[in-house]
Amino acid sequence: MHKTLNQLSTFGQEVFRQAGLNQANATIATDALVAADSWGIHTHGLKNLGGYVKRLNAGGINPLGQARVTAEGPAWVRVDGDASLGMIGSVFAMRQAIRKAKSSGIGFAGLRNSCHFGAAGYYASLASDEGMIGIAMCNDTPTVTVPGARGAVMGSNPIAYAAPAGEQSVLFDIATSTVAGGKVFAAAAAGESIPEGWIVDEQGQPISDPSAFPTKATLTPMAAHKGYGLAFLVEILSGVLTGAAMTSNVLSYAYDDPSKPTNHGAAFVVIQIEAMMERHEFESRLQSLIDEIKNAPKVAGVQHILIPGEREQKYKSKALEEGVNLPDDVWAKLVEVSESSGVELQAG
Amino acid sequence: MHKTLNQLSTFGQEVFRQAGLNQANATIATDALVAADSWGIHTHGLKNLGGYVKRLNAGGINPLGQARVTAEGPAWVRVDGDASLGMIGSVFAMRQAIRKAKSSGIGFAGLRNSCHFGAAGYYASLASDEGMIGIAMCNDTPTVTVPGARGAVMGSNPIAYAAPAGEQSVLFDIATSTVAGGKVFAAAAAGESIPEGWIVDEQGQPISDPSAFPTKATLTPMAAHKGYGLAFLVEILSGVLTGAAMTSNVLSYAYDDPSKPTNHGAAFVVIQIEAMMERHEFESRLQSLIDEIKNAPKVAGVQHILIPGEREQKYKSKALEEGVNLPDDVWAKLVEVSESSGVELQAG
Repeated sequence: MHKTLNQLSTFGQEVFRQAGLNQANATIATDALVAADSWGIHTHGLKNLGGYVKRLNAGGINPLGQARVTAEGPAWVRVDGDASLGMIGSVFAMRQAIRKAKSSGIGFAGLRNSCHFGAAGYYASLASDEGMIGIAMCNDTPTVTVPGARGAVMGSNPIAYAAPAGEQSVLFDIATSTVAGGKVFAAAAAGESIPEGWIVDEQGQPISDPSAFPTKATLTPMAAHKGYGLAFLVEILSGVLTGAAMTSNVLSYAYDDPSKPTNHGAAFVVIQIEAMMERHEFESRLQSLIDEIKNAPKVAGVQHILIPGEREQKYKSKALEEGVNLPDDVWAKLVEVSESSGVELQAG
Repeated sequence: MHKTLNQLSTFGQEVFRQAGLNQANATIATDALVAADSWGIHTHGLKNLGGYVKRLNAGGINPLGQARVTAEGPAWVRVDGDASLGMIGSVFAMRQAIRKAKSSGIGFAGLRNSCHFGAAGYYASLASDEGMIGIAMCNDTPTVTVPGARGAVMGSNPIAYAAPAGEQSVLFDIATSTVAGGKVFAAAAAGESIPEGWIVDEQGQPISDPSAFPTKATLTPMAAHKGYGLAFLVEILSGVLTGAAMTSNVLSYAYDDPSKPTNHGAAFVVIQIEAMMERHEFESRLQSLIDEIKNAPKVAGVQHILIPGEREQKYKSKALEEGVNLPDDVWAKLVEVSESSGVELQAG
């Protein structure tokens, strides 16, 4: 189903307003979700609105929650998300990290008492929009196994970064699992099988039926011990260091009791470019790196080598002009929210 | 061949002294290399001494080089490595990042005009030894392809972190390639074939003959676009932002003209735990994360789930008691250096 970004924004804001958020917070949260949809990352966009609303209505997310600084120093900030939406606490915390990087050259913000934050890359992009390098990460309820273990041990603990490069920004956002859980859900919804290696069954054996996830299957860490170790770093910075819940104590925003806070943690690092080098020099150096990569010899059949974030930025340019064509499973979720909330989905 | 850590240290220091380093710098550089050997990471230990000495003798590495701060602010430092050994500039830069983290909560040090720095994890461990969280990364001459490209485009750009956890530290150190180049060299030296997926030929096709690397084969990025994107972040922070050489402008410390500086870059981030939380609380939380992972159900045949760095720390405990048993290819390299330098390898 085809929708403009404005139509999606209006819908998201009205749904959040109806769930009790003030207009400012409804806008902040919707902007984060629609950004993911504008990049074609529909697994982390408005598709999840229904799950957030369910928790808002049941009390596990506080519609009146206001993230706040609980302690700070020259280059660091502790943030309590006040059990608000993950997008609200995370935007607030990233803005604090940006503020610290502006004054001190680098800034760290640790967020506790938060919830599922959607696309990590969105928060990183807030820093690159301000001409800085941003890094964002979040822990999550376990859905990923680790080498040697049976069953879920770690969250899919995403990590993202963004850097300004003149005309376009570099943007990178990955789950530390082989694939994000959302891709497995999308395959299950589409009735498709998945490649071997994405998930393993309860004995640790590879399977290709996505419907087994998450109850009877777990995601695999990307590149085995390497993804495990990166997820562990995300857990240290987002969970251990912030005082948020860790691994199995983080609730699933979608599956666990919606009346209870999920207590996700997140971490944000921002680096001020001008501390190290003139902005125009940085951008020109980054552009020459991009040019060198794009001009490398290509394997047969490949036209363009993509820079991290290029696919998403091309998708967004098209979305701004023509709107986005939502996948059927996403559309079905929006119709559900529209029907249960009574908020109309404007014609496309 | 069996050697104690003290014997290895004495040998390394004498070789570096003979190559023109003062005792302080010879000790700093040797400590970094012997630490890698003590962890069983022989690909990044004294095995590379001969390559460093060749460059020291030819002038590409300055034996009298002294890394220095060229600019600094509340939480950041720019460091010029003065074309000294990578280990010297990197230890200096990491100490600066630690200093900034102590005063400001987080510290960033960017290093230019450096060389191949060995094991990234060593620098991260300097921070965890001081009760802080350390992150270290370095760019390198291209040996890794990227999705869609033929031939080497990016360095194997390693990234490492370490965090204190009471009795033992968590330590993680990876190349962003599927495997580090050193593993391919070791397989070639041992006359072994390598698993499909480690390297590709000049057309981008997988091959299993390690001797083709690096002239007729390139490493693959770990987890395809995910490793590529992480290597890109390492290149941004270590290369673009520091003013060091980038990708193909970084010389190989082993293969390129030894009379020219390699101009590697590196980046170091340190986070002060006490900014966010009491140290004992952090360590107790990290220990409970470790316990939860270690107590997870195991797949058939697995006795222990390893924590990042556990293998290395066990290797080191044994090495401290019994010395290390150097692989044949490492021993052969040490004998070469001993013969060319005249520095005796003490009996084991």
